Amino acid sequence: MDKAKVVVFEKPNVPLEVKEFDIPELEEGCILVKTLVSGVCGTDAHCYRGQVQMPVPVILGHESVGMIEKIAPDRKKDSVGEPVKEGDRIFWVAGHPCLQCYSCVALKDTTGCVNRRSYGWSYSCADYPYLTGGYAEYVFLTGRSYFFKLPDSVPTDAAIAFGCGFPTAVKGFEVIKGVQPGQSVVIQGAGPVGLSSLVMAKLGGASPIVVIGAPSSRLEMARKLGADETIDLSSLPEPEARVSKVRELVGEVDLCVEATGFPEAVSEGIDMCRTAGRYLIMGVFSDLGPVPINPSLIVRKNLRLYGSVFWEPKHLYQVLQLLAKYNDRLSLQDAVTHRYGLEQSTSAIEDVEALKCVKAVIQPGYKAS
Amino acid sequence: MDKAKVVVFEKPNVPLEVKEFDIPELEEGCILVKTLVSGVCGTDAHCYRGQVQMPVPVILGHESVGMIEKIAPDRKKDSVGEPVKEGDRIFWVAGHPCLQCYSCVALKDTTGCVNRRSYGWSYSCADYPYLTGGYAEYVFLTGRSYFFKLPDSVPTDAAIAFGCGFPTAVKGFEVIKGVQPGQSVVIQGAGPVGLSSLVMAKLGGASPIVVIGAPSSRLEMARKLGADETIDLSSLPEPEARVSKVRELVGEVDLCVEATGFPEAVSEGIDMCRTAGRYLIMGVFSDLGPVPINPSLIVRKNLRLYGSVFWEPKHLYQVLQLLAKYNDRLSLQDAVTHRYGLEQSTSAIEDVEALKCVKAVIQPGYKAS
Amino acid sequence: MDKAKVVVFEKPNVPLEVKEFDIPELEEGCILVKTLVSGVCGTDAHCYRGQVQMPVPVILGHESVGMIEKIAPDRKKDSVGEPVKEGDRIFWVAGHPCLQCYSCVALKDTTGCVNRRSYGWSYSCADYPYLTGGYAEYVFLTGRSYFFKLPDSVPTDAAIAFGCGFPTAVKGFEVIKGVQPGQSVVIQGAGPVGLSSLVMAKLGGASPIVVIGAPSSRLEMARKLGADETIDLSSLPEPEARVSKVRELVGEVDLCVEATGFPEAVSEGIDMCRTAGRYLIMGVFSDLGPVPINPSLIVRKNLRLYGSVFWEPKHLYQVLQLLAKYNDRLSLQDAVTHRYGLEQSTSAIEDVEALKCVKAVIQPGYKAS
Amino acid sequence: MDKAKVVVFEKPNVPLEVKEFDIPELEEGCILVKTLVSGVCGTDAHCYRGQVQMPVPVILGHESVGMIEKIAPDRKKDSVGEPVKEGDRIFWVAGHPCLQCYSCVALKDTTGCVNRRSYGWSYSCADYPYLTGGYAEYVFLTGRSYFFKLPDSVPTDAAIAFGCGFPTAVKGFEVIKGVQPGQSVVIQGAGPVGLSSLVMAKLGGASPIVVIGAPSSRLEMARKLGADETIDLSSLPEPEARVSKVRELVGEVDLCVEATGFPEAVSEGIDMCRTAGRYLIMGVFSDLGPVPINPSLIVRKNLRLYGSVFWEPKHLYQVLQLLAKYNDRLSLQDAVTHRYGLEQSTSAIEDVEALKCVKAVIQPGYKAS
Repeated sequence: MDKAKVVVFEKPNVPLEVKEFDIPELEEGCILVKTLVSGVCGTDAHCYRGQVQMPVPVILGHESVGMIEKIAPDRKKDSVGEPVKEGDRIFWVAGHPCLQCYSCVALKDTTGCVNRRSYGWSYSCADYPYLTGGYAEYVFLTGRSYFFKLPDSVPTDAAIAFGCGFPTAVKGFEVIKGVQPGQSVVIQGAGPVGLSSLVMAKLGGASPIVVIGAPSSRLEMARKLGADETIDLSSLPEPEARVSKVRELVGEVDLCVEATGFPEAVSEGIDMCRTAGRYLIMGVFSDLGPVPINPSLIVRKNLRLYGSVFWEPKHLYQVLQLLAKYNDRLSLQDAVTHRYGLEQSTSAIEDVEALKCVKAVIQPGYKAS
Repeated sequence: MDKAKVVVFEKPNVPLEVKEFDIPELEEGCILVKTLVSGVCGTDAHCYRGQVQMPVPVILGHESVGMIEKIAPDRKKDSVGEPVKEGDRIFWVAGHPCLQCYSCVALKDTTGCVNRRSYGWSYSCADYPYLTGGYAEYVFLTGRSYFFKLPDSVPTDAAIAFGCGFPTAVKGFEVIKGVQPGQSVVIQGAGPVGLSSLVMAKLGGASPIVVIGAPSSRLEMARKLGADETIDLSSLPEPEARVSKVRELVGEVDLCVEATGFPEAVSEGIDMCRTAGRYLIMGVFSDLGPVPINPSLIVRKNLRLYGSVFWEPKHLYQVLQLLAKYNDRLSLQDAVTHRYGLEQSTSAIEDVEALKCVKAVIQPGYKAS
Repeated sequence: MDKAKVVVFEKPNVPLEVKEFDIPELEEGCILVKTLVSGVCGTDAHCYRGQVQMPVPVILGHESVGMIEKIAPDRKKDSVGEPVKEGDRIFWVAGHPCLQCYSCVALKDTTGCVNRRSYGWSYSCADYPYLTGGYAEYVFLTGRSYFFKLPDSVPTDAAIAFGCGFPTAVKGFEVIKGVQPGQSVVIQGAGPVGLSSLVMAKLGGASPIVVIGAPSSRLEMARKLGADETIDLSSLPEPEARVSKVRELVGEVDLCVEATGFPEAVSEGIDMCRTAGRYLIMGVFSDLGPVPINPSLIVRKNLRLYGSVFWEPKHLYQVLQLLAKYNDRLSLQDAVTHRYGLEQSTSAIEDVEALKCVKAVIQPGYKAS
Repeated sequence: MDKAKVVVFEKPNVPLEVKEFDIPELEEGCILVKTLVSGVCGTDAHCYRGQVQMPVPVILGHESVGMIEKIAPDRKKDSVGEPVKEGDRIFWVAGHPCLQCYSCVALKDTTGCVNRRSYGWSYSCADYPYLTGGYAEYVFLTGRSYFFKLPDSVPTDAAIAFGCGFPTAVKGFEVIKGVQPGQSVVIQGAGPVGLSSLVMAKLGGASPIVVIGAPSSRLEMARKLGADETIDLSSLPEPEARVSKVRELVGEVDLCVEATGFPEAVSEGIDMCRTAGRYLIMGVFSDLGPVPINPSLIVRKNLRLYGSVFWEPKHLYQVLQLLAKYNDRLSLQDAVTHRYGLEQSTSAIEDVEALKCVKAVIQPGYKAS
């Protein structure tokens, strides 16, 4: 029986520990994946700080690209029917909807599944199949896991660059049926969801596009990805000033995208939207309570507001297809600015918390030179 | 030259005065309409109280059914091309979009027209064509006015019963693409917009439908119109209690409709909506400022919120068609509970303000027996 | 080991034979269902005549309501999470999408699944779990099967009345986002899909509704279900005459629904649609080759045509919910006009072929009095 | 009173004649426009050949950019409210919907207006205001005409390059709610509508995009505009071969766009569409009668077909906005390959008929060097 190094979370604020786990025998429908990179998501920091309830001990890491080490003979294809074999690179889906609840079946929307579980934070690594998070040399996928083969032309780093933020944005844009060429867009937030939204808006022909966020490294990335204008939060800390600036830069805003996590951003976004404008709200996932919002603006401006949470396997598949078609131009791998070995996982999380990185990844075996 | 009695608003809180105006000569494209009934809208009360800016003096009344007294020879058809002649009953559209602005042309949405004017509150009756409001014996329509012939089977009172609230609801339901059979609906508010929303939900097969409002006369009307359940605000004054009651009565809510005018209702409505639910917000038109709202619920529940204001000529046409098809069953004329002559206009407004009526109308020449 | 009587199809046009099969042991995730009724679908007749390729021997019957005889201890809920137990009536879904192909995952539309299999015609009853069709005393559902508990108030016959035609129509109406109150609708075809479409149009407030079809028993059912007008094919055999009649009866047609199976109906439907009208095409499933159609009408009338095939579990769930809410009024059980024991299965199919029935069902143990 | 040279059509196939007309006095709401360029549309050739019924004599030319020579003092803004003055370049809308019919008001879709008239083919130039077509030194716009100021950065030739084909495509893409990034698109036809559809697909992020058409000069333009692949009709004259080629080049087709005018193209397009694909049909405007089409493919593939005819003022406005944002990259002026003076109008039409041009324009005063 082989062994795998894994990074285990036991308690909030206590540094993650590297341990060695046995690798289970391969059973029907299962796949053993050798981790190439696992993204460090902002959610991992929330987990580390104890803001997410988890069945400890847990192996963090819910956005990862790996190589198929072993695959059960009955599992010959990925989740869209593409043939796969040992040695192929795959991006697996961390979340497992139950497929037998009202949301999964009657609404056909697994993002509302009440029984949803996910590798990387809602499985205890004390239970079979143990290797249930991406901060590890190996991950063990059961028959419940969706996964997609990476197109050959897509660099591993490009696939992980915006991590789960990219399918989150793809799903959000699906909810709003996308942008139309020539629409003006403001994106609040320059993290993975914000930058992914920028990519979606840009690919869809939106123009002009403004990104509001911080720090400057992310805004620089935004400009590389085609933002026509960026507004640095540190230079315009007042919401009213940002609204004015946006109006000055682009006039009326057809679509506003919230990707900040701060509920206060919503009132600002509503102010920015034009008559008959649309507002896609994805960032305010954590419940930080109510904030003052003026609903008469929603009425008088004929606004449409769309909340969107999580994503489904199809959206990750779309991410990979978009990268196959557009990464030559986008070069998303450049967003991976920080890289850590398993042993540096705690530092990685702290750096992400401190907004030091555009994107940080755990790469088992990586040693800073 | 003939004369017409009209009711003139000069100053807030000063009783309306009956005057006699000359009737202008009929010109190309124009129609002289003899008022049959003019609805007393909640907005008229806001006007009377000085909460709406108006170019005084003004003849109030923006929802009216009249009879064609004289029609210019070049105006042979109504706004959908139906032949009309003297003696026909018509429902005319008070609002006049400019048809040459960004909203009217580029957005093709005249409800966002920045130059919108309207008979009944935004024309001074000191200017030609003077007879520019419904609280009058005659109204003078110029070529800018849309109007529709009443189907013969539709009682005048049925057409006026929910006044401009009915096309408001029809437009709102168009924005959300209606309900689907079997969807559960909660309607906040039992005034004209709320009751009209109830009619739209009922006709569209929604089930069950709950109406929350006051006073009891309106809730009784709601039950007559097919509400499965009603909740009286006076018996459940606490929002949390109403949310619980709704959950108890109908379980999850697929669609919530706000038709109250109170911004506080929005947070309550968001609470009521199910995962992937929809929320149509029409009532909070007056700007009463921001209220506490929790945007993380919008995200986590994948909600869609739609603001909708005003309506377009097509929606009034649809109202009349729906009445032609369904008023036998609906009997909307029963909603006209109070009737006043021109001379009682001020009392009419005060009664509406005091929520004494399901619907009040001004009927020139009417004398209480 | 218990035995179950089943009806086996071996060869086209050779009468079905009643045999006795062993009932397999219950395994994890499985359910043994005692058949209450199994609908005789037009497709069964196509199967019997050899027009559908099947892995013989096959037990026909893909739309059935049964009672849970035994259920594996790990299967405590139905497919929307409702608790179920032995003795409960359920409607199970015959089709099994693969959930791992482009259509199932990337399009999230299992009706396009290329690996789709279905109880009742695409499983050989020579293979485990043998009891794979509804023309049988018992059906054996594996973990792949979706199923829904019947609401207590819904008669078994009402649930089976339009068989798989009802969810087919529900899915079609979902594709077109339903009707809006007051829209005029023409339905071509008065079989299960056509009558189900009528129910959907009626519940959605369409008015007027015309049903075109045969024979008179089905048109009578259509009128009971609320069709405002019916046109008997036998009295108006010419398409042009039917188009004229429809125009005379309802004027312009907002929505046309094809539920005939005859490709020639499509050109007729296009003729009927108004400018900006919609056309839902569901009946022409069998490939009977090309027919003359004038595409310039599609362009000049700004038409939208929607093809729709099959349905998903959610649509059957919706059927049951609609019945719970509306069957008191609809009384769909009246559509079950013919009933047969297992031994009369061949006669049942022949009667369906001869259009003798509104709906025929197989009811194990049934003996004509 | 000033004079204007105009080109008059009297009879089919008789060369157009240059005449001199008096210029009417400017009245309220009117604009005198000096023609800069007027596009030669394929429809002009149909007119010239007598295939379009017209109230002769007629001045052809329904897509034109001109300079405001004189403007009535009450007309200070263009149709979206932008200030205009003498000397400004404008693109005027040839079509005049009635705004008082069922389609204009109840459907809010002026493309279905039954009373629609249009400069360039449905006004006799024997009647006031005479200057009612673009093949003329001056055009006289009345208050009924919509028009838009050209953004300064947009070359006149770029605005006229695809003439009325561009707003036709913009409206078609609005009907289908556009493409989403990464969708595969096939465009049938490389004329103005086809190339405009290519621009819309490309701007919307479609990939890959195939254009099928002729002659090679247009396909070359298609490749310059970003078509990933082109198929020359002359090298693949068989529909089946084209379907195979498309499948080989792009696999499944998410969206097919018909812009050919040949009804036979529709069956080919249906073949190309993937399961759940969409088909936008815009080219088959002229009624060339029915062709064989297999509706079972529409059903079995869950297809959606959208017919779209004409366009509204908003779509021309969008064209100009898109050019302001994207013409630096698109350089549409390169599509104007042929230029003619008023005197060469007949030759221009003949060259367009012979498919010699990507785009031909009439430019009053132009003399070939």
